[in-house]
Order: sequence, then structure tokens, then C-alpha cells
Amino acid sequence: MSKKVINAALLGLGTVGTGVYKVLKNQEAEMEKKIGATVKLKKILVRNLKKAAAKIAEPEILTNNWKEILEDESIDIVIEVMGGIEPAKTYIMEALKAGKNVVTANKDLVASHGGELLDCAAANQCDFLFEAAVAGGIPIIRPLKQCLTGNHLSEIVGIVNGTTNFILTKMTQENMEFADALALATKLGYAEADPTADIQGYDAGRKMAIMASIAFNSRVTFENVATEGITRISSKDIRYARDLGCVIKLLGVARNTDTGIEVSVQPMLVSEKHPLASVNDSFNAVFVHGDAVDDAMFYGRGAGELPTASAIVGDVFDIVRDILFSCTGRIRCTCYKTLPIKNQEDIESRFFMRIHASDTPGVLAAIASVLGKYEVSIAQMIQKHKHEEWAELVIVTSRVKEGNFHDALLVLEKMEVVQKISSVIRVYGEEE
Amino acid sequence: MSKKVINAALLGLGTVGTGVYKVLKNQEAEMEKKIGATVKLKKILVRNLKKAAAKIAEPEILTNNWKEILEDESIDIVIEVMGGIEPAKTYIMEALKAGKNVVTANKDLVASHGGELLDCAAANQCDFLFEAAVAGGIPIIRPLKQCLTGNHLSEIVGIVNGTTNFILTKMTQENMEFADALALATKLGYAEADPTADIQGYDAGRKMAIMASIAFNSRVTFENVATEGITRISSKDIRYARDLGCVIKLLGVARNTDTGIEVSVQPMLVSEKHPLASVNDSFNAVFVHGDAVDDAMFYGRGAGELPTASAIVGDVFDIVRDILFSCTGRIRCTCYKTLPIKNQEDIESRFFMRIHASDTPGVLAAIASVLGKYEVSIAQMIQKHKHEEWAELVIVTSRVKEGNFHDALLVLEKMEVVQKISSVIRVYGEEE
Repeated sequence: MSKKVINAALLGLGTVGTGVYKVLKNQEAEMEKKIGATVKLKKILVRNLKKAAAKIAEPEILTNNWKEILEDESIDIVIEVMGGIEPAKTYIMEALKAGKNVVTANKDLVASHGGELLDCAAANQCDFLFEAAVAGGIPIIRPLKQCLTGNHLSEIVGIVNGTTNFILTKMTQENMEFADALALATKLGYAEADPTADIQGYDAGRKMAIMASIAFNSRVTFENVATEGITRISSKDIRYARDLGCVIKLLGVARNTDTGIEVSVQPMLVSEKHPLASVNDSFNAVFVHGDAVDDAMFYGRGAGELPTASAIVGDVFDIVRDILFSCTGRIRCTCYKTLPIKNQEDIESRFFMRIHASDTPGVLAAIASVLGKYEVSIAQMIQKHKHEEWAELVIVTSRVKEGNFHDALLVLEKMEVVQKISSVIRVYGEEE
Repeated sequence: MSKKVINAALLGLGTVGTGVYKVLKNQEAEMEKKIGATVKLKKILVRNLKKAAAKIAEPEILTNNWKEILEDESIDIVIEVMGGIEPAKTYIMEALKAGKNVVTANKDLVASHGGELLDCAAANQCDFLFEAAVAGGIPIIRPLKQCLTGNHLSEIVGIVNGTTNFILTKMTQENMEFADALALATKLGYAEADPTADIQGYDAGRKMAIMASIAFNSRVTFENVATEGITRISSKDIRYARDLGCVIKLLGVARNTDTGIEVSVQPMLVSEKHPLASVNDSFNAVFVHGDAVDDAMFYGRGAGELPTASAIVGDVFDIVRDILFSCTGRIRCTCYKTLPIKNQEDIESRFFMRIHASDTPGVLAAIASVLGKYEVSIAQMIQKHKHEEWAELVIVTSRVKEGNFHDALLVLEKMEVVQKISSVIRVYGEEE
């Protein structure tokens, strides 16, 4: 009996591409029995043929000419792991139009142009899968699109950036300051040379846009996500959070409310009792709430050569099954609603803040009175340090509209008794 | 445009059946846009028509005659939530042979007869899905069968019984003894009137058999799983475990080793640092290790009306997509290997034990010498309590063949200086 072979092409042979190459090799002997056919990497697109040749056993499959792949009708699956918007987007669109199925790990692309790409895939009855674009090796796209479709999902909360979670874990467990923890992350290879996208929350924002779109059946793009990074978090904030029974995590939060979708990424205080609080180091996790499933959480490696390749090869194998059953394109875009995205100032949050204020009678009353005027109720107020002339106050508010809170902050900052507002950090969850 | 309707029948209208009915109602308005068709419950099979009529809005769809469903060619999906082996097995086989796709939550059936049922489904090009049979609402079957297929999975560790996890959590957090915690679980509805299957580990054993089969691509049935319950765990064991930095959990452990599959369910000490240690109350979690994905964990509600229905409806919706794309049967049995199952005595484990021994010189040496004779190395030995004539010793062993350990125990028990061996509990994981 002749062996059934399905040809694939890999675009890119960086860390993730090399991982895909390795995982396909590791699975080669069992593929036919497992999924009904063997996936053969027929071509690998690279920029530098010479550099790439050192990485693989069959340098003859390397090419720097996209047309060689696009025009090869025997190639049914294109695996894009180049990253960036262009030329990835053009290549993927061309591949789909040529009837090739596509797997990508490209969160930038899916978060900004996912709708267009999914429409193109549907028009050409192709699969367009991107499990690896969110939370690396953790199965989350397929669970959201298939396992949990019987739910109205109301909330997705994610620790979906390993770099920042590593930094915050070091700041928490070893009392490091942000700059030192970032330097360590860079040294250990957890942070890129330019860490902006990670530490400013952009990377997490892209993943939240993708998950929110799927979970709420309404398109959310990266441009809709309000992002705030972790650069202003200090080890003092973390110590004070601990006194309140909390840790500080960079959380992506997406909520489907009656008045629209809320979606943001920011550092937040999380109760130590919440399952997300014990997600440490470079691990990622996504916490989901639905009307039927209640709470569920998915935990694992959010990045890395082999974990990301695990997700990509899972997608490739699913496409093989679809090809063998002539049902490519069976899971399509599920954004059949057009829900409004709420403005950040209309979102309700709880806040933690640290204020340096004069240590004179009536100061607390004055601050409380300003907050009250803007409908900010105080849930907790603790005087932390008393110096000669000023005291450090920690205030945790009840749930309040962000707009109101920020209006109150503007007034507080101008008060003569307020020396400075040294931290403002949101608090996740309801009051206990 | 006429609305596309796919007819389904529900077998059973107990807790889970009612949940499925509710979740389908909750999704009715969106189904067509979400999955391309509306699922209509055309018939519900019940024993007591009158009792069931009170539960639903359309009592006319109730029947107590299976033939009415089997012979109705317009019914494409059968959802079995009766539980038990018969008549569930006969009904499912008949449904598959009639070309109907089947969803079941029946772990007893899948754990003992899964191979036969999957073969029957494949022969008839039908889907046979059972996401709800393991860990309730937690997506785990689809992740194992699809998302993680690019891995050689080497280990599955699960807290997959909510009743026992609730009991152990109460014993840990409130120092309750087993009998009191069980009574509380019964009162709160977490334990059934006859709790045997839960507290003896049989229920968890069934789920481990199903997951091991899928993860290791080799059939494991419930009969292959060594099970030990939690009835002998005392609050003292839990306190001593805490002193060692551990909690006690009922763990299902399945390992794919070079010499065969190990699969068992038993109470175990787990390091407080392990993600499974903070899975409390009636929550379930499944921890997976693979060569590509590294560690991953899936957490959520392992039982209950709506969480279980969430998993079932996810399967039903997947079948709808397969029907619309004419590809039912695309995910088949993946047990293409026949790996040996190791005997329990050949498995290597670490052990925690409490021994009451005479408080006389040379006792420790005598005990250590017996253990050494059977190749049991001592990793830790702590003298806990000294009474007038005896002392309580806590011993934690290194990894040892279970057979050797049990041979050593037989000798220890007969030693004059040993008053009793009050606990023997396995320890999860490697020495730190």
C-alpha cells in the first residue's frame, strides 16, 4: 500500500520554525497511524540559505523564493512562522487563494487582520488555524472555538506574556526592582533585545484581542485594547499588595457586558486565593468564565521553541484530518455579532493607590471628600509610614467608573496636602 | 431561506440531562449563526414520563420507547446521559449502526468498552464523542486528541474526582477527619448516597483509563488501573505532610515508560509548589507532560449539571459542523499501539510512612537495616512524638520498586520493636 503523504511548506526557520521542523521529525514515524497520513516538509522559505542550511538535514528543501512554494500545487499546507505583518500577510492571502491551508503563530497579524484572513480562508474553503498565536503551547483557541461553544462566555482573564510574568515573579519572590528583573530576563533570554512589546503590554493585548473575538463572537482588534505596561510597578507596590493578600500580575481582562465589550491589559492586584495568582515564572494561563462551564483555566508554556511548535503541529495534524475527510474550512470565523467596545473611562474598576500626603489633621477627611465627590468609595485606607511631615496612605477603592476615578485623581494631585500620588494600580475581581 | 435544523435525541433526563436541555435552550437563538444549524431536541427517552414532564416545556417530546428514537431517521445525534453499562451500551451500539452520531458522558462505559464503541463508530462513519466523560466541563479529550497530537505525552496526572478533593480540602483546611468531611460532602450534595466509587478511587480510575488510552495511543481499560481510596487518610497524615511542604491529594497518575504503561489512582503527597496542590474544593485539574509542550494544566469544574452539559453541548456542536461538512467520523480511535501495562509491584514510587516503634536504643538502626535489605533508601526520617515507651517515626523513602517496599513492610510489621505502621502513602514527583 502506498504511503499517504501530505506536503507542507514552512515559512521561516527561526526559533519557532526550527521547533516545528524538530517536532515533525519526532512525529514522523507515527504520523500515518495517528492521523492517516505523513506530513512532509517539501520546502522551507528562508532569507539566508547558507545560515539555514546549517540547521537542517536536507538543505535542498530550502528556498528564498516564495513563488516556488505558492506555485507548487502539491503543497497543501503552509506554516507561517516569519512573524510581522508583511510579507506574512501577503503570503498567507496568496496561499489561501491558491487553495492552500494555513497555520500561523503570528499574533500581530491575527490580532489586527484576523477577520480578513478568516474571510479569505472561508471563501477558498481552506483551514486557517492559529492555536500558537495565543499562549504558545497551551490549547486555548480550539477549546474556545469548539469545547466551550455551548457557553455564553462572559470573561477571559489571561497571564499571556511570559516575559512580564517572569519579571513580576522575580520582583515578588526576590524583592527585585523592575530594572534589575528586566536585566535578568534579558540575560536569561526571556526578554528580547527590544522588550517594548512585552513590558508595555502590547504583546498581551494582541492575544487578548484574538481571544475576545472568539469568546464573544464579535471582532476585537489590537487597536481596541487599552494597554498599560509594568514599568512603573515597584517592589514596594508588590510588598503592599502582599499585605492586602494579593500579588501583582500583568492581566489581560476581556468582559462581555450588557453595555459592550471591555478589553484591556494592565498590571493588577490579584487575590492570592485566585488560581491565576500562583501562575509564576514564564508560565502563562488563561482563566475563562461561562454560563455553563463556570470557571475553567488553561495553564502552560506561553512561548519557546517546542511548546509553540506543539500548538502549530497540532493545527497541522488537524488540517491533515480535514484534507483526508475533504472538510477543510469546517471551523470558520465565528464573529457573527457586532458588539460595541466600551471606552476605558466607562469601565468600572477597583483601584489601589499610594499617596504621600502631609501629616496634618483633616488630611484624610479632605482626600476622602474629594473622592466622594467623584463617587469613588473607599473600601480600605491604611496609613503605612509616618515621616516628620508626611504620611504614606494606601487606599483601595470600591468599584468605580474609571472616568470618575481619573477626574478625582486630577483634583487630588493639585491638593496642597498631597505631595505625590506614587502608584495607581487596578485591582482584579470583586470585593470579598 | 429555510432554517437548517439537525435533530437530536436525549437519553436520560437526570441532573446532566436537564443541564443539556437547559444549555441547548440557552444557545438556541445563536446556534445557526454559531455552527450553521439549529439543534432541535426531538425526543427525550425517560423511564418515568410523568416525573419528567414536570421538568420541561414540551412534554410531548418525552418517550419511554427507545425504538421510537432508533427508528426515527430524522434524528442524527443521540446524547446518552443515562449512565451505567446497560442498556446504555446497547442503545449506543444500535444508534451508531443506524448511522447516528453519539455523544456520551458515560465514563463507566467508555473506560471499559471504549475501544468497541469507537470501532463501531468508525465502521459506520459516525462521530462518537465523550468530552464530558472525563473531568466534567474541562476541555481535555479534544486537547489530548487534537491540540497535543504533536507530542509524545509521557505523563498525565489528574485530580479528577470532585467528591474526594472536597473531602481532602476540608480535612486540610479545617482539620476535619475523613468521616466528618464525608458527612459534610453528603449533606452538601457533593457525595452520593453510596459514595464507594468516589472514595475508593474507582471513578477517578475510569477517567484515568480514558485519558491514558488517548494520551499514549494504546488501550487502557478501567480493569488495568490500580486504585486505592482515601478512607485511611487521617488529619494527622495531612498535618505531617504539611510539615514536609506537601498536601495530600487523590491523584490519578498515568505514565508512558520504556517498559510499559503505569496507571494508578491513590492518595499522594504533592509538593505545595506544584500547580495541582492548589486545586481545591470540588475543582478538578489534569496536568499533562509532553516532549514538545512541556507542562500544561487544565482546570475547572469536574462535575455538575451545567459544567457537564457544557462539555456535552460542545461535542454536539462539533458533530453539527461535521454533519454540515459531511465528515462525521473524522476523529477516530487513536489506540494504534499495544503497549504493556506494568504490574503495580514493578512501578517505582516514593513512600511516606508513619511507624510507632519502641523507644529503645538501636530501633532506628534495625528499621533502617530491614529497609536497606529490600533496597529501600531513606530520604528523610523524623521522630515526631516520644511517649513513655514508644516513638512515632515518619519516614520518606527514595524511589523504590513497590514490590520491594511491600516486602520490606511485611518484615517491618513483624518486628518486635514495631508497634504498628499507621500510614503508608505514596509521594508524587522526584526528590527535590
